[in-house]
Amino acid sequence: MSFNTFGRVFRFTTWGESHGPAIGAVVDGCPPGIALSEDDVQPFLDKRRPGTSRFTTQRQEPDQVRILSGVFEGRTTGTPIALQIENVDQRSKDYSEVALAYRPGHADYAYDAKYGFRDYRGGGRSSARETASRVAAGAVARLVIPEVTITAWVEAIGGDAIDPANFDAAEIGNNPFFCPDAVAAARWEGLVDDARKSGSSLGAVIACEASGVPAGWGAPLYAKLDSELAAACMSINAVKGVEIGDGFAAAALTGEQNADAMHPGNAGPRFDANHAGGIAGGISTGQPVTLRVAFKPTSSILTPVPTITREGEATEIRTKGRHDPCVGIRGVPVVEAMVALVLADQKLLHRAQCG
Amino acid sequence: MSFNTFGRVFRFTTWGESHGPAIGAVVDGCPPGIALSEDDVQPFLDKRRPGTSRFTTQRQEPDQVRILSGVFEGRTTGTPIALQIENVDQRSKDYSEVALAYRPGHADYAYDAKYGFRDYRGGGRSSARETASRVAAGAVARLVIPEVTITAWVEAIGGDAIDPANFDAAEIGNNPFFCPDAVAAARWEGLVDDARKSGSSLGAVIACEASGVPAGWGAPLYAKLDSELAAACMSINAVKGVEIGDGFAAAALTGEQNADAMHPGNAGPRFDANHAGGIAGGISTGQPVTLRVAFKPTSSILTPVPTITREGEATEIRTKGRHDPCVGIRGVPVVEAMVALVLADQKLLHRAQCG
Amino acid sequence: MSFNTFGRVFRFTTWGESHGPAIGAVVDGCPPGIALSEDDVQPFLDKRRPGTSRFTTQRQEPDQVRILSGVFEGRTTGTPIALQIENVDQRSKDYSEVALAYRPGHADYAYDAKYGFRDYRGGGRSSARETASRVAAGAVARLVIPEVTITAWVEAIGGDAIDPANFDAAEIGNNPFFCPDAVAAARWEGLVDDARKSGSSLGAVIACEASGVPAGWGAPLYAKLDSELAAACMSINAVKGVEIGDGFAAAALTGEQNADAMHPGNAGPRFDANHAGGIAGGISTGQPVTLRVAFKPTSSILTPVPTITREGEATEIRTKGRHDPCVGIRGVPVVEAMVALVLADQKLLHRAQCG
Amino acid sequence: MSFNTFGRVFRFTTWGESHGPAIGAVVDGCPPGIALSEDDVQPFLDKRRPGTSRFTTQRQEPDQVRILSGVFEGRTTGTPIALQIENVDQRSKDYSEVALAYRPGHADYAYDAKYGFRDYRGGGRSSARETASRVAAGAVARLVIPEVTITAWVEAIGGDAIDPANFDAAEIGNNPFFCPDAVAAARWEGLVDDARKSGSSLGAVIACEASGVPAGWGAPLYAKLDSELAAACMSINAVKGVEIGDGFAAAALTGEQNADAMHPGNAGPRFDANHAGGIAGGISTGQPVTLRVAFKPTSSILTPVPTITREGEATEIRTKGRHDPCVGIRGVPVVEAMVALVLADQKLLHRAQCG
Repeated sequence: MSFNTFGRVFRFTTWGESHGPAIGAVVDGCPPGIALSEDDVQPFLDKRRPGTSRFTTQRQEPDQVRILSGVFEGRTTGTPIALQIENVDQRSKDYSEVALAYRPGHADYAYDAKYGFRDYRGGGRSSARETASRVAAGAVARLVIPEVTITAWVEAIGGDAIDPANFDAAEIGNNPFFCPDAVAAARWEGLVDDARKSGSSLGAVIACEASGVPAGWGAPLYAKLDSELAAACMSINAVKGVEIGDGFAAAALTGEQNADAMHPGNAGPRFDANHAGGIAGGISTGQPVTLRVAFKPTSSILTPVPTITREGEATEIRTKGRHDPCVGIRGVPVVEAMVALVLADQKLLHRAQCG
Repeated sequence: MSFNTFGRVFRFTTWGESHGPAIGAVVDGCPPGIALSEDDVQPFLDKRRPGTSRFTTQRQEPDQVRILSGVFEGRTTGTPIALQIENVDQRSKDYSEVALAYRPGHADYAYDAKYGFRDYRGGGRSSARETASRVAAGAVARLVIPEVTITAWVEAIGGDAIDPANFDAAEIGNNPFFCPDAVAAARWEGLVDDARKSGSSLGAVIACEASGVPAGWGAPLYAKLDSELAAACMSINAVKGVEIGDGFAAAALTGEQNADAMHPGNAGPRFDANHAGGIAGGISTGQPVTLRVAFKPTSSILTPVPTITREGEATEIRTKGRHDPCVGIRGVPVVEAMVALVLADQKLLHRAQCG
Repeated sequence: MSFNTFGRVFRFTTWGESHGPAIGAVVDGCPPGIALSEDDVQPFLDKRRPGTSRFTTQRQEPDQVRILSGVFEGRTTGTPIALQIENVDQRSKDYSEVALAYRPGHADYAYDAKYGFRDYRGGGRSSARETASRVAAGAVARLVIPEVTITAWVEAIGGDAIDPANFDAAEIGNNPFFCPDAVAAARWEGLVDDARKSGSSLGAVIACEASGVPAGWGAPLYAKLDSELAAACMSINAVKGVEIGDGFAAAALTGEQNADAMHPGNAGPRFDANHAGGIAGGISTGQPVTLRVAFKPTSSILTPVPTITREGEATEIRTKGRHDPCVGIRGVPVVEAMVALVLADQKLLHRAQCG
Repeated sequence: MSFNTFGRVFRFTTWGESHGPAIGAVVDGCPPGIALSEDDVQPFLDKRRPGTSRFTTQRQEPDQVRILSGVFEGRTTGTPIALQIENVDQRSKDYSEVALAYRPGHADYAYDAKYGFRDYRGGGRSSARETASRVAAGAVARLVIPEVTITAWVEAIGGDAIDPANFDAAEIGNNPFFCPDAVAAARWEGLVDDARKSGSSLGAVIACEASGVPAGWGAPLYAKLDSELAAACMSINAVKGVEIGDGFAAAALTGEQNADAMHPGNAGPRFDANHAGGIAGGISTGQPVTLRVAFKPTSSILTPVPTITREGEATEIRTKGRHDPCVGIRGVPVVEAMVALVLADQKLLHRAQCG
């Protein structure tokens, strides 16, 4: 993993800016012979696509993926799979002000400090638009791990959490919030609408569960499964925290409370609990792999915030443009994609060493 | 990063098991001409060393480091630096029971599931003893980033947190808990003693701040500084969560609350706040880099826990041996080391691309 | 380097098949602020382009490159540079026979053995068409090392070598063979014409010199400059040998004959000779880096050759289609590109470690 | 691969200098459950060991290997295998002159140019002593590929080649030159003795054949099997050229002459010839993998050679010390080790992608 490539054996490289002609991903190391067409990728892009409800940015992007290589007669050949998505609705004029002053919370200042120069249109490379490439690559990754089911959902918006008692996985697709709790989803309509109308924004917590991961995936010590998942999720725009299993809550437990007692089971052990989130010593235990990801509120808000210009002068900036009032919502398919990408890589890496 | 190597340009590889003859690290890519001797490494190992107070494991390890290569006439030569630490106090007899049954919460079952076979003595490779190698490598990393000061401390044990109002960095070295709050430190004596005496264990939260990191370090998109820190910290034994800046708390904020407003400053901008933890878009902003790491309670407890044998039969296990009642405490120098290792790598990686 | 990515800090990934819709490269880790447009890349593609004389394949490919990312306002931003070339003149019908039987000397059988499946159209991924992507990436690499001048030429075709006494670098661009010896170039017209007309093919030796490489590039031990150049050149289609400096000839010398005696010079030492090809201990010495690359004759010939079908039955195959009678000729810009890519990576890698 | 690590999935890292206390290798990614003890490694070190005949350096090194990790109850555990060899017979006094002036042909000047500083004792890190670590790692690699038999031999010394008609593999172990031709071996006694006595040195060509490699290993495009072998062999001290199959000779052939015609066979195709050296498109074909490696003459000679001091003053240097009159001879076990290391890595890499 370096710069814009992720993974060891199943690897992907993404490229493209928010306002360039296109974005894309090259997936490398994919096993041969897997049935793959645009139809396997498009549904995941549609899930992430902007402009599908009033709760997401109004930028209109069809996000139609094209596969340019690596597939022959409908099957992967083992050679690199180039996935490409055209950028259609770039309104670069919205960003003239951004060229001159740094938006606090955005990558503007950091990119300039690093590169001495930046593509300021829509955040350029630092835009969450790049995550479409990840979602496309993740769709390929899913085909490499058919034994695994990955489901993510929004667990809280602006501190307002779902009620675990109401959890219904079937509900996740029924509302624009990927919310498994119909009651919370109803509340969030108002919550997010208020933020949107006032030009404010809200943070969110995404939870994800991968079931069907067999025991034994993970490459200790420095490619542990949990370490990889943490890197993968923390690399998503706006993410500020990652937990595996009980995460920070485990730090308040005693050893007795945190013990995942084991019993004989039909296929591997039966566990009394899953505080560990399906990972011990960096290796999967056969339990569902569970994690939680914290998204900060979108940094683009209408309220003017003090900032500085490129020349270092004091000024204020309010971010107009089109933005998600809660960027975490569209993070759901991205988290799923990153989890799929890590698991596909770890499956192949495990196969390499352990046959 | 793969298996037992971490880093891209400044890289280290660790080896060794809890009960083998020795453990070690090979540091590669270190710039030449840096003054380095065992004396630069030993103090950090001493900080992590077991057996220094009744609040840590009673295993007695002098942890004397030897530098076997890469240094000539007291300076690094640019070639690999081999660091080696003998294992002295291995009581392998303590682990006979572990050979037969899996300790819940430990890596025992996962290692067997992966490798079909494991060195059960003291957890073998999955033992936290390996972190001594990281601390040794981290001491070298610190010399690569003299502009940075890294300080970690324990922020909470078993859910009992310090009072930020009492924070005094000078206090951290004055108590066996790396606790910056003298009042909390006094409370924790009783808390940890109780756990120790009853054969229980406690989780902990470690906080860490790296000041002096210039703006511009971090290699987006898949070697972002925060992504790297998350991977590095999540790879530490017993860690279940990592936050950058406000982390999960940021998910409950609005964009206005989370904005780190900027003003003209003497050396780079002056920020009103540091919710972002010194990182935006995966690149350092020049503010202190702050993070928080959750350690689960030590899985080794005296209370018998149901488990299964290697043959899949039901049994119970209570972990006798010698263990830390709160493994998070000794995590402090390990977190510091991992942060140093990430920053050294990112400094060199930044220099590679941006001169 | 793995699968389809090459390099450590300055890295490129290529994708695409001979008969897919397009091919491309993603260049990652490029320093920011470098002036770059399609005009910097196109001349090198034009040099490699098929169909420019009767001595190369008659496939007509305009090989127009598009830059899809990583450049803003005419300068590199430090983010990935996506380069794309459309495939225009694919005559897939030529390859129907190849679908059924393996062409000896080609990758057909090996790809099937590896992947169980292959894109047989024009060799698919194993086609030398992929080298266009390398040439495009190499054009970017050249901009990273403006201090270096890289020149390659054909030194021998079918065993007929140039006369060193006739060497004239200015001549290289004056004939379709990249031949620095006008006399040899005249001879080669007949030689290659004969091969072309009879449906035969010829091998070639390419020589390359990189001048201006400062002393100190190369990352011993396993990314030595010569090791990297060998890997880079051996990865080119049809290459079977690589020499640095005197190469195999040095194996017949004595230590006295092979000594590159040193004298005080104005900028670094002055050497009496350059048997070493500008590299000692894997690190550049400041002398010109010289190497030689052996290309086997094109495996596609009109003479029927015994082979087997996918089902393992005996058959014969004669390769019709459109092919280079001497694939080594068009290897010249490809060797230059690979040398540029290695040197750019090593320059940045050196900067990382040694400042 | 970077700096001192080689490989992708089966990886090794070496460390240590000629005159430090020890040298070693860490082998990572080795499959678990393989029987391994020092006895599996020592014979290969003995083959490479100096001081075994008057034709190699008189440095006396027992080269006893110790395995410090990664093995439990006689089997590999899947965790890193640390191999260590003490340096015993370092006579650092021999190198006082070398501290002041650069030995032409050696890495002295290049290391100083790169690092600004060097361990001049015996060449420090650039010494061929490091190859003992490779041989140790290679012994582990062999156990990962039991299906493969790797045999290397000396094909020519100082331009005096064996007669292929006399080739007898059983002869290789019968003389101090790893020579398969008894007649040539007799000639070489005088040849090498003369060089030794006059303080001169000779180059050599090593040939190597790996039989039993199944079709399908190799990871195109940038980890092609031949590309990897070239990198691995070119990274060996004193190597200046690498050929696969017919290598440079193939460049003088026609397509008809170079065709390896295929016929139906019992296990895979039967080939009429093996000009390709068992590799097509970077992937093994099931034929023996053959290669040839050129070693330059040892740069250490008694004849004074003009050179410069560290301060840039003109001087002369004659290299006394203890040196191999023909460093290529002891290259035989090193080439075998590197081939084993590449093949082990490629076997696992293939398994990762293709199951």
